[in-house]
Amino acid sequence: MPTFKPRPRLLLGPGPSDVHPRVLEAMGRPTIGHLDPQFTAMMDELKELLRQAFRTQNALTIPLSGPGSVGMETCFVNLVEPGDTVVVCQNGVFGGRMRENVERCGARPVMVENEWGTAVDLDQARAALQAHPEAKVLAFVHAETSTGVKSDAQALCALAREHEVLSIVDAVTALGGIPLEVDRWQADAVYSGSQKCLSCPPGISPVTFSERATETIRNRTHPVQSWFMDLNLVMGYWDGEGGRSYHHTAPINALYGLHEALTILCEEGLPDSWERHQANHLRLAAGLDKMGLKLLVEPSARLPQLNAITVPEGVDEARVRSRLLNEFDIEIGAGLGALAGRIWRIGLMGESSRPEKVDRVLDALGSCLSA
Amino acid sequence: MPTFKPRPRLLLGPGPSDVHPRVLEAMGRPTIGHLDPQFTAMMDELKELLRQAFRTQNALTIPLSGPGSVGMETCFVNLVEPGDTVVVCQNGVFGGRMRENVERCGARPVMVENEWGTAVDLDQARAALQAHPEAKVLAFVHAETSTGVKSDAQALCALAREHEVLSIVDAVTALGGIPLEVDRWQADAVYSGSQKCLSCPPGISPVTFSERATETIRNRTHPVQSWFMDLNLVMGYWDGEGGRSYHHTAPINALYGLHEALTILCEEGLPDSWERHQANHLRLAAGLDKMGLKLLVEPSARLPQLNAITVPEGVDEARVRSRLLNEFDIEIGAGLGALAGRIWRIGLMGESSRPEKVDRVLDALGSCLSA
Repeated sequence: MPTFKPRPRLLLGPGPSDVHPRVLEAMGRPTIGHLDPQFTAMMDELKELLRQAFRTQNALTIPLSGPGSVGMETCFVNLVEPGDTVVVCQNGVFGGRMRENVERCGARPVMVENEWGTAVDLDQARAALQAHPEAKVLAFVHAETSTGVKSDAQALCALAREHEVLSIVDAVTALGGIPLEVDRWQADAVYSGSQKCLSCPPGISPVTFSERATETIRNRTHPVQSWFMDLNLVMGYWDGEGGRSYHHTAPINALYGLHEALTILCEEGLPDSWERHQANHLRLAAGLDKMGLKLLVEPSARLPQLNAITVPEGVDEARVRSRLLNEFDIEIGAGLGALAGRIWRIGLMGESSRPEKVDRVLDALGSCLSA
Repeated sequence: MPTFKPRPRLLLGPGPSDVHPRVLEAMGRPTIGHLDPQFTAMMDELKELLRQAFRTQNALTIPLSGPGSVGMETCFVNLVEPGDTVVVCQNGVFGGRMRENVERCGARPVMVENEWGTAVDLDQARAALQAHPEAKVLAFVHAETSTGVKSDAQALCALAREHEVLSIVDAVTALGGIPLEVDRWQADAVYSGSQKCLSCPPGISPVTFSERATETIRNRTHPVQSWFMDLNLVMGYWDGEGGRSYHHTAPINALYGLHEALTILCEEGLPDSWERHQANHLRLAAGLDKMGLKLLVEPSARLPQLNAITVPEGVDEARVRSRLLNEFDIEIGAGLGALAGRIWRIGLMGESSRPEKVDRVLDALGSCLSA
């Protein structure tokens, strides 16, 4: 079998995004042991870098050894117990996945449904919490990757506090790309992914838990149904105090990459990164507008890092994506679920959010649509 | 925060093992999309390479997106349902972790306990199956990383067939290092890890399931309690037929590394790899014997890739490990659980199983013990 040497692509889909050469170089450094003092010192730096990215002082702020869906499931299996009620806001694919998680915990989801392509409706969420005083958790997606919609995470976290429920926030596509203020907003459990605005290869899920959430995990009645995701065990490895105990073997080289990516983010500064994402989004939107293409989402709810474009009448959307990939080496995303066949998704995340990359996709899209 | 540049170590602990430069180079190749046709073609090659390594034709043979403990949990949560009885053989740390998995599935573990440092006793396992005709699964560890013991996986799989139960085989440290014949032995569910005898960085768990096990998963009464590990969903991404459906984002670069590592294993040939592991084990054992050091395990049950050495009376075992690391850049392992403080563990796995590396650790150990 020959060595696999991928032809490089410009990654403008819903993730993974382009990975910085410094991150790729870091991934290829020699593997060392997961209990090596060099490595555990790096873990401490990594936790600090993640706290900066999440804007939090939360002690329990770590990268989980799995993709974003492990982050999601870890939040649910640790905070939710059988018989609990969880209010789940759904306005795209990932709210539906949250519902499945709640059900698999033996808990009861109360769904707040909003049309795909619109933000979570605060009044509906409030009404659901009022109608279900027994609810323990309010769960929602900050940045819906399937539709390009931003919901008001700050207001939703405030609503959760007001009703004395815990908030679970899907920030997979949010982290690094739009303002996310874990401490200021008093979010309780937040999970993200490495392959979106952090521009790492996929496979790692950064998470952070408030003291209130951590206490809830420590005081559970039932054991966490997953051994791998049981934070009571995972904390023993990531907590420095009293020596680290072996839980599972951390994905050493992937964490080298995450460390480097977070260092790059720190060098740029979070506000500058948010601003860059916004500026390149506006550049893309202006170019699309010139070509007569419409964005699915109304301006106030648009995610700069994920642009959902309505496929014009009479255009074969799959053919355009395939031509972009095969003739221009540019990957963009298709619609999912209810939006399959109806939208394209152009991601401008992390290293993919650069003006020259915006121009390249606009040019290529123009060629595909005119020929 | 400065870039993390680890000082290289010779990895002779219980894993990770030394990673071949070709694998590190592969890990640093440009990330492409997880639905890119280039990537999905590579996935097909990867499945074929894994089938060769496991010696199987099993259709469901894939690398899971998590460490070996995800492999273990995936086997249990998919094959075991609430109320089931599972016979678990324990002769080290990992049998205990199996027990925890069974309990968290709401099932009943029947334990077959053997002294740490000895192999699973076939008669005891048979007696447990006879006493529990309701049992659905027999679970055991082929290569106990915590003690350096090999159990008779072939005989245990045959015992499972004889009693019409499914076998779950922990082959985390076995795969690539000692003979493992999934089809010939009729094993049902086998999981491994990337960072042992395959010499990849940690983070990926290769698994394979027999047709009988796959049918059991398809015909479950209860949904799998984990969304992430539900093989009914995971299969939709890894099965080529009828197009791939998105489940989670695969850890692209880690899979580049695994592809390269399996290619290297194929180039060497499995029997040659097994022979190399055995030869270097004998070289180590002879050197230890000359120094008056004893192996914990009796010769017939010794794992060539994991050598448990009894710490001599009066020797500060932690100090020796610390000197090896700090003065010689060699990592070896400590004892776990009941064997903590009583043994050292020298792993000779994959790329770490080389005569010059054996000589290097023997020399260094000699220095530490004489000074």
